[in-house]
Amino acid sequence: MRSALFALLVVSTSFAATAAPRTLEEEAAHLRDSVLERNHAWDIVESLTTETGPRLAGSPAEANARQWAVKKLTALGFKNVRIETFDVPGWERGTEKAYITTPFPQALKLAALGFSGATPEQGIEAEVVPFSSLEEMEAAPDKAIKGKIVFITHRMPRMQDLSANYVKLNPIRTAAPSIAASKGAAAIIIRSLGTDHHRNPHTGGTVWAAGVTPIPAAALALPDSDQLERVLSRGKPVRIKLRLTPRSLGTLQSGNVIAEIPGTDPSLGLVLAGGHLDSWDLATGAIDDGAGVALTTAAAKAILDSGKRPRRTIRIVWFGSEEIGIYGARAYAAKYGDVPHALVGESDLGAGRILKLSSKVNPEDLGTIKSMLRVLAPLGVMTGDNNGDPAPDVIPLVELGVPLIAPFQDGLDYFDLHHTPDDTLDKINKDALTQNTATWAVILWIAANADSTFARLPLQPSH
Amino acid sequence: MRSALFALLVVSTSFAATAAPRTLEEEAAHLRDSVLERNHAWDIVESLTTETGPRLAGSPAEANARQWAVKKLTALGFKNVRIETFDVPGWERGTEKAYITTPFPQALKLAALGFSGATPEQGIEAEVVPFSSLEEMEAAPDKAIKGKIVFITHRMPRMQDLSANYVKLNPIRTAAPSIAASKGAAAIIIRSLGTDHHRNPHTGGTVWAAGVTPIPAAALALPDSDQLERVLSRGKPVRIKLRLTPRSLGTLQSGNVIAEIPGTDPSLGLVLAGGHLDSWDLATGAIDDGAGVALTTAAAKAILDSGKRPRRTIRIVWFGSEEIGIYGARAYAAKYGDVPHALVGESDLGAGRILKLSSKVNPEDLGTIKSMLRVLAPLGVMTGDNNGDPAPDVIPLVELGVPLIAPFQDGLDYFDLHHTPDDTLDKINKDALTQNTATWAVILWIAANADSTFARLPLQPSH
Repeated sequence: MRSALFALLVVSTSFAATAAPRTLEEEAAHLRDSVLERNHAWDIVESLTTETGPRLAGSPAEANARQWAVKKLTALGFKNVRIETFDVPGWERGTEKAYITTPFPQALKLAALGFSGATPEQGIEAEVVPFSSLEEMEAAPDKAIKGKIVFITHRMPRMQDLSANYVKLNPIRTAAPSIAASKGAAAIIIRSLGTDHHRNPHTGGTVWAAGVTPIPAAALALPDSDQLERVLSRGKPVRIKLRLTPRSLGTLQSGNVIAEIPGTDPSLGLVLAGGHLDSWDLATGAIDDGAGVALTTAAAKAILDSGKRPRRTIRIVWFGSEEIGIYGARAYAAKYGDVPHALVGESDLGAGRILKLSSKVNPEDLGTIKSMLRVLAPLGVMTGDNNGDPAPDVIPLVELGVPLIAPFQDGLDYFDLHHTPDDTLDKINKDALTQNTATWAVILWIAANADSTFARLPLQPSH
Repeated sequence: MRSALFALLVVSTSFAATAAPRTLEEEAAHLRDSVLERNHAWDIVESLTTETGPRLAGSPAEANARQWAVKKLTALGFKNVRIETFDVPGWERGTEKAYITTPFPQALKLAALGFSGATPEQGIEAEVVPFSSLEEMEAAPDKAIKGKIVFITHRMPRMQDLSANYVKLNPIRTAAPSIAASKGAAAIIIRSLGTDHHRNPHTGGTVWAAGVTPIPAAALALPDSDQLERVLSRGKPVRIKLRLTPRSLGTLQSGNVIAEIPGTDPSLGLVLAGGHLDSWDLATGAIDDGAGVALTTAAAKAILDSGKRPRRTIRIVWFGSEEIGIYGARAYAAKYGDVPHALVGESDLGAGRILKLSSKVNPEDLGTIKSMLRVLAPLGVMTGDNNGDPAPDVIPLVELGVPLIAPFQDGLDYFDLHHTPDDTLDKINKDALTQNTATWAVILWIAANADSTFARLPLQPSH
C-alpha cells in the first residue's frame, strides 16, 4: 500500500518534471518527490551507527562521532560546518548484575540508570519491597523502606500520546530513585519504562535532589520485572544480590555540530532543524536519535541537491548530550538565543511516519503552515494543531518564544526500543524514514522561503 | 477467531455432558473439551519457570528442578513419581565479551556455545575472517584461518519445516567450531541460528571432534552479526577483542523425572509422553521446553481428573540434559528399551498450535491414528503422514522401532526465542497452549485404550 503510493508519487514527479516549478508550493512538491526518488537518510544513519557505534554524552565515542559528523556534513556539501563545545558531567556504566538469592535463586537482567550510584565492589544483598507506583512508595513509612531494595512496578501502555504513557510515568525513572534514597533505601530497581517484552532493559537518566546521596538505581527488563513480580506473589520474603559499579567522571567535554545552507537573505532569521548526536551507551542509537539527525540532514541535503538557494539560512544542528539533560540544547540557546530564528524543530521520536503537522506560531503565520500541509497531503500528513510539543533540544528556544514546527510521528513502537540494547539499525523501516524525510524537506523549503514574518511568541516558561 | 472456536467447543461440552460418553472417541472428545475448560499447562509452566529458573544440564539448578518436579507431579496426583539419575559432562558459562577494536571501536553481544573453549583470562585480540557458509570456511586454505577469528555468516529463513532451516544450518553451530579449530583458528564466532532481530544471542551445544582442542566459540546476536558484516563491508581489516571464560566441570549428575497413571492392563505396553526438564542457562526455558513438559503433563492430568483409568499405563517423562546431547533420552532407552512401549511422543517445539498429526506406526495401527484425528478435527488438527519426525528425546526409542506419535506444531516463531535470554514465560500464547494440550489429551486417551497392537517397527538406525 505504502509502496504503491510512493510509486504513484514518483510517476507524478516525472510528469511534473516536464514543466519547471514556479510557485513555492510547486518547488516544495518537487523537492518532496525528489526525496522519494533519492533519500540520503538511510545512508547517513547506516554510516553513523556502523562507523561510530554508541555515543554516550561526554564520552570519547561522542567526541569521535563529532569528528565523523564534521567530515560527513562537509562531504554532503554543507557550509560553516563546525563543532561548538560545552561541559557536561561525566558518568560511565560498570558491571551490572542482579540475582534473586531467595526463595528461588535466579539471575535478573537490568541496566543501571544514568548517574546511578554504585554498590560496594562485592555488591549488596537486601530484601525487596515492591510498590505499584511512585506515589505508593512516597507514601510508605520510611521504616518500610530503610535498608531495602525498592522495586517499582507499573504498566506502561502502548499509546501514541506520550503524555499518556512516557511523560506520565517518567518520574518513576527520574524522581523515584532520589525519593527512595531520601527514605533510606539500599537501592532501587524499577520496571523499565517500555512497551516491549524482550530481555533488554531500558536505561535513562535519573536526577538526584540536592543533598541526596545517590544509591544504586537500575531498570529491569520487562520479562524480568514480570518474573520478580511472580516470585513476590508467592508471599515469601524475596532477597536480591545486586552489584552495580558505575562511576562519575567529573566534568567532560561534549559539543554540538552545526552545518548550514546559507540563505540569500540571512536577515530573515534562521530555520533550524536537527536531532541529537549522543545516544545511550547500550546500543548504536539508530532510533534515538540517529534517525532524527539523518532525516533532517537528508531533507536539507535534498535542498542542496536541488541547486536552489533558500532565502533564509537553513541551520542543521546535531545536539550533544541530550540524553543526560539537554546540555547541548541549553548551550545552543545560551549562545544563539538572541539571534533571530524564524522557525525551529527537532526530530527525536524514531524513524516512523509523520502522521500530522503541528506548530506553535503566531496566528498570522498559520497560512505558511497550511501551505506546507497542502504539499504534504499526498504523504498522508494530516493537519495538527497550533499547540505543538517541542522535542527536547528545541525546548530552550521555544521557551524564548521562537516559533516551533512539530511534525507528529508514529511512535507506537518507539518505547519498544527506546534506551535499550535493541536500538539498532535493523529496526528502521526505510519507507517510513523516507516519508518522514520528505516531510521535513517540504517544511524546510517553505519555511526558508515563505513571506511570513515568524515573529517571536511571548516567553513560554511552562516548558 | 480462535477464542470464538474455543467458546463454541466449551458450549458443546455442556450439551455432551448431559449424556455419559460411551465410545472411546466420545470419551476422548469429552476429555478434549475438559481441557478447553480447565487446562493445567499454564500453571505448571508458570510455576516451573518462576520457582526453578534456568536449568542447565547437570547444574544444581537442574537438580533443584527435579526436586520441584517430584513435588509437583505428586501433588497433581501421579503415581510412581521418581528421579532416575545418570552422569553428564559438566560445563558452565563465564564472562563473555566481544569488542571491535578497529576500525570502529564498539561492543558486540554474543554468547558462548555450550562446551566452548576459553580465552586466556585477559582475552585475545585477532583479525576477523568472514565466511558465508561452513562449506566456504572448510574449503579455505588453513593459512587464511590460522590465528584468526573465524566469522560465519548465513541467513536462517523463517520456515515451518525445520529441515529447511534449523536442521540444515545446524552444523554451523555443532560442527564448524571443531573444523575451525582443526584449521588453526584462534576462535570462532557465528551468526546466531535464529530468526529474530533482537540483541539476544542464541546459544546451543557444539561438538569437538576427537583430538581437537576446543577453541573459544560463540554466537553473535543477529543485530550484532549484521553490524559486524557492515563494518567488514568497509573493506578495512577488522579486529576483535574477545574474552570468554567458560569452563568444563568434569562429570556431574543429571536425571529424568518419571510419573505415571497406572493402567488396568500394563501388559499392553506403556504410552509415553513428555518433554525435557533442562534448559539453556540464559533464560527460564519457557518455550524450550517448559511448555513441552507442562502441556503433556496437563494432558495426563486431565485424564487423572476424569476419574477414568486407562488400560495402558501412561508414563510422563521429564527428560534431563537434552540440550547438551539427549543424555536423559539415552539413559532412559538404555534402562527401558526392552520394556514394551505402545506409543511414544515428545513435545519440544514450544507452545504453538498443533497443525497436523503425523506418526510412525505399523499400517495396521493407522486406524487408531485416524480415530484420534476424528476427535481432533474440531481443534483444526489436520491429517499428517506416517513418516513423522521424532522430537529429540524419543529418538533412541524410535531407533529401537517403538511406534511414534508426532504432533506437528506451529514453529514459525520458535527460532525467535530458541536458546536465547528471551525464552521467558511471557512468550507463551495461552490459547495455543490449550489447543496443544487438548490434542495431547486426545492422543494419550485413545493410545492408552485402543485395541491396536502397536507392535514394534523394524530398527530405525537412521535417526
